Amino acid sequence: MAQVDITRQLARYATGSSFEALPTQVATEAVRAFVNWLGCALGGCRDPSVAIALAVAADAGGSPQASIIGHGLRTDLMSAAFVNCLSSSSLAFDDTHLATVTHPTGPVASPLLALAERLRVPGTDFINALALGIELECRLSNALLLPPARSNVGFYITGLTGPIGAAAALGRVFRLDEPRMASALGLGAAQASGIRSTHGSMAGAVVPAVAARSGAAAALLAQKGFTCRDDALEAPNGFLSVYSTSADSERAVAGLGESYELLANAYKPYPCGIVIHAAIDACLEVAAKNIASLPIRRASIRVNPLALTLTDRRDPGTPMEAQVSLYHWVAAALLRGRAALGEVAQECIDDVNIVALRRDVLAVADDRLGRDEAIAEVTLHDGSLLQSHVRAARGSSQRPLTDEELDQKFLMQAELVLRREAAAALLHAARNITTMRNVGSELLPILSARSAQRDTAAGPALADGHRG
Amino acid sequence: MAQVDITRQLARYATGSSFEALPTQVATEAVRAFVNWLGCALGGCRDPSVAIALAVAADAGGSPQASIIGHGLRTDLMSAAFVNCLSSSSLAFDDTHLATVTHPTGPVASPLLALAERLRVPGTDFINALALGIELECRLSNALLLPPARSNVGFYITGLTGPIGAAAALGRVFRLDEPRMASALGLGAAQASGIRSTHGSMAGAVVPAVAARSGAAAALLAQKGFTCRDDALEAPNGFLSVYSTSADSERAVAGLGESYELLANAYKPYPCGIVIHAAIDACLEVAAKNIASLPIRRASIRVNPLALTLTDRRDPGTPMEAQVSLYHWVAAALLRGRAALGEVAQECIDDVNIVALRRDVLAVADDRLGRDEAIAEVTLHDGSLLQSHVRAARGSSQRPLTDEELDQKFLMQAELVLRREAAAALLHAARNITTMRNVGSELLPILSARSAQRDTAAGPALADGHRG
Repeated sequence: MAQVDITRQLARYATGSSFEALPTQVATEAVRAFVNWLGCALGGCRDPSVAIALAVAADAGGSPQASIIGHGLRTDLMSAAFVNCLSSSSLAFDDTHLATVTHPTGPVASPLLALAERLRVPGTDFINALALGIELECRLSNALLLPPARSNVGFYITGLTGPIGAAAALGRVFRLDEPRMASALGLGAAQASGIRSTHGSMAGAVVPAVAARSGAAAALLAQKGFTCRDDALEAPNGFLSVYSTSADSERAVAGLGESYELLANAYKPYPCGIVIHAAIDACLEVAAKNIASLPIRRASIRVNPLALTLTDRRDPGTPMEAQVSLYHWVAAALLRGRAALGEVAQECIDDVNIVALRRDVLAVADDRLGRDEAIAEVTLHDGSLLQSHVRAARGSSQRPLTDEELDQKFLMQAELVLRREAAAALLHAARNITTMRNVGSELLPILSARSAQRDTAAGPALADGHRG
Repeated sequence: MAQVDITRQLARYATGSSFEALPTQVATEAVRAFVNWLGCALGGCRDPSVAIALAVAADAGGSPQASIIGHGLRTDLMSAAFVNCLSSSSLAFDDTHLATVTHPTGPVASPLLALAERLRVPGTDFINALALGIELECRLSNALLLPPARSNVGFYITGLTGPIGAAAALGRVFRLDEPRMASALGLGAAQASGIRSTHGSMAGAVVPAVAARSGAAAALLAQKGFTCRDDALEAPNGFLSVYSTSADSERAVAGLGESYELLANAYKPYPCGIVIHAAIDACLEVAAKNIASLPIRRASIRVNPLALTLTDRRDPGTPMEAQVSLYHWVAAALLRGRAALGEVAQECIDDVNIVALRRDVLAVADDRLGRDEAIAEVTLHDGSLLQSHVRAARGSSQRPLTDEELDQKFLMQAELVLRREAAAALLHAARNITTMRNVGSELLPILSARSAQRDTAAGPALADGHRG
């Protein structure tokens, strides 16, 4: 397939992008993406994987250029980009571009916030750069997939397009000219990485974190004149041809500046793989119907085949495995009537009743069902049959989380590490980021003030307790 | 194809590997690989791309943990791994595992030398770790390709397997146990990256450099307990299945500890893409026959198809493009009778006679020719026909560079930045690395001593002049 010169077109779009030119709805959605991301970074910042990554970063001894969210520490920019994106990804609670299962905000927001501590970045520029980075990521994910099932599902696509989106966002803040922006995009593409077999271990969250660091490196190098050819995305042996057998470059640029993939970005109500969400909704509906909490005799769940391709884990042993276990969430939702951070805690994973039900659930891949659709059929001990057919999962494009739901999700996570008043103040500030003249000096102090931290925040108890 | 549990097998092999168990020939070859790499790092350390990467690294302000070769500076370990591998890759003069066109030593030696400045590493352990890392890289490259033509030639394979080899090497120095070693390998695989469309720009050398940094990150994280599943290489949606449609895991472990891919590693006599070398040899032979230096009327070159797939650039404009231009080297070799650093200098690229001949050369892909084979046919102005059929290029497995040739290659490059006596002393030390009790305290001082540097070493003149 003949490929369009998308590297140059995207570079031109990126260098000319501005907050003023963003439709209001798009700017609003970018702020929602930022609020969701910041909450997830706070929610995940006590994960054991983050402590390890932070120890490695501290060992490198970089200059204190950028804050580590929730830790009251600063490291060099690239390390902070890595660690904060690891935090926001570690609970699998981050956002999702549903058409491509890209998690777009972490790899972009994380280095962008780090850079905003070094340069004076107004909130409007910050949100424009964030919207830009997400837009390029999602458009390139679209261009790769065409449709998802035909691409290699083993690629962790966030790691492929994330570095390019991040490079664009930081490049915009650096005010790169078109040739340098094109180099930044190419250098991002040269670092594309990520395989799905990392899911179920700490390494699953390392893929977006690497994307954040790689995107930062691409922008920092390009800013100082490091070159990459200006057609690295579409060239023979280039990004699109290497990562897809059926790439359509046109999809990366069609309607650029008119239609926005950012509007198809979704926020998770449940801390687990997004392909599980419809099944959770169906099971929560069944649980709500089981008023007397009668024991379950049989349970089956019908889902789109992709859900089983990605989350066919019947016996998860750890929170990381449970995040991507369809059976675990079906069992937890049916027995507890909840699907929150408590349901990915070790205690819930080891609960004998949940273990037993996980082993009995029948899961069926049904290609007549959409990606946001699921059907639960549960027979209770008394022989009664409870059914639920969810046609659009909560958090899907048809049922997006409201601002209030997003705020609740933010506070639930922020209050794991911040005092209640500080969490509320941070939420208010993040929601009003576009009014800031300098994100670094106005937002970060609220986040990092010693008075904002919960007393227990640094304690080892919370390292496990954040999931409870 | 059912896959073998290679992640665990390779982890077990890595943790048990020792210098004592290496056949003498393998240990000798590892030293040759190190000497070749160190020379290339010195030869490339004045490349403009390295100055940029070093500025980015310096800006991060990491602790002075590891030396930047040829610059008398120290940065944090991961930055040094990146910059030094960029240096050794920037002139396309690095080594090559011919069967897979992997350039194995840079991504391993670079972080390993950096680590040897932090830990006390005896020369024997250093060489064992280097041999180990190279072995795993080349074996995994073998496993991916099966044979090269069936894999996606657009992947820059050094970037795919490099992080895994580097992770193994550093993991061995850290004395990781088997589970942590398996995590290190998986974390390396999760960062596999690199596309060949970067060739011809600074970004071509960024791919091995990223591999070096990623491999270091993998080992540093795993050492502190960061986990990855222990089958990340062979699992569904894992490394082999994602990066190849025809992977054969068995090839990664068959004869492990008995046969060594390191022995199939080759060193380049010419500073350009290895697939061009047979053509250069053929043209040099023709040039030698053209005793009267008569003008050329017609010139044709027949090569294995891969040579044209990777280096079909008729009009290179820069040294980086010339490195991967078959036409440039054919023209330069025919007209100058040489193919050294001077032939990749801008002055040679812009030489009107060479430009004209590049445009006239007929290049033919001939799948009857082997990868190390080429046929040159040149008609001179007087109508006489000169021919050469090279069946095994210099530097190929049939015609490996001798120790003396390697030493000359080292000195040619080292003397660009070091005084003659210092270059000779460094060569002597590198050749005797296995006698060192502490590589960091014995080798690095020779390299970094102020008295060793050429007066012009830091001057901007050499930044361009190193190619002349």
